[in-house]
Amino acid sequence: MTHSVQRVTLITLGVTDLDRAREFYGRWGWRAHPASQPGVVFYQMRGAVLALFGRDDLAADQGRDPADLGTGAVTLAQNCTDDTQTDKVFQAALDAGATCLKRPEKVFWGGYSGYFADPEGHVWEIATNPFWPLADDGSLTLPDARD
Amino acid sequence: MTHSVQRVTLITLGVTDLDRAREFYGRWGWRAHPASQPGVVFYQMRGAVLALFGRDDLAADQGRDPADLGTGAVTLAQNCTDDTQTDKVFQAALDAGATCLKRPEKVFWGGYSGYFADPEGHVWEIATNPFWPLADDGSLTLPDARD
Repeated sequence: MTHSVQRVTLITLGVTDLDRAREFYGRWGWRAHPASQPGVVFYQMRGAVLALFGRDDLAADQGRDPADLGTGAVTLAQNCTDDTQTDKVFQAALDAGATCLKRPEKVFWGGYSGYFADPEGHVWEIATNPFWPLADDGSLTLPDARD
Repeated sequence: MTHSVQRVTLITLGVTDLDRAREFYGRWGWRAHPASQPGVVFYQMRGAVLALFGRDDLAADQGRDPADLGTGAVTLAQNCTDDTQTDKVFQAALDAGATCLKRPEKVFWGGYSGYFADPEGHVWEIATNPFWPLADDGSLTLPDARD
């Protein structure tokens, strides 16, 4: 687990027009995963996931003003195996000098998630998602929609 | 190769203060790869790489004004196996509605690279890097610095 922190398992692009964004990625050749929902689109990558998510929703998730997200709003997410690990990884980032945006808490979709900004304003989400179990190597594969 | 386009192999965070950023990631527990250089820091992830790179250098690379990068400047990169594939993937994105920032061209570090923005302004780099061969599964592992 030496490198357990050294991981990005979810990249979220905050978008103003979800339909337009989804159409673009579809035309470029990306296939949306069946786990996608009306307000969020997921793409399975190799051991990680790319997501499209409404910019206003993304800002609300982080407890920030949408204008603060700037151009090309992006979050880097690190999914953890349990809430204890999420707290530990989150606290380690604060101890390292990160700015807390929202402490990890139980969230409406059934997970446990917090946000911080690194010293340059790059936003990380540290989360436990009980519906998205991690592989032993820390990689993330979206579960089959039929499960 | 059905999913060959569905890949992020390099995430680049544009930073104003590279020392400050590197110190933060080091304190958080990330170990810089020996391939890192004075102007750029690489972190090996699982089949992909996170990079810290000067914001002005990142803007220059894309042929843009640093102010245009906005808060939390980030690029998503997709490394390809050869220049032909890079051209193909790049053109497919333009055909899908991307805005060309810089057509793929031979670049100073020995590779072949282009940048485009998706309809939301998220910036992608499509590149061939002869010094960073991809695995058969499209994943990227930084070569041993002693090679």
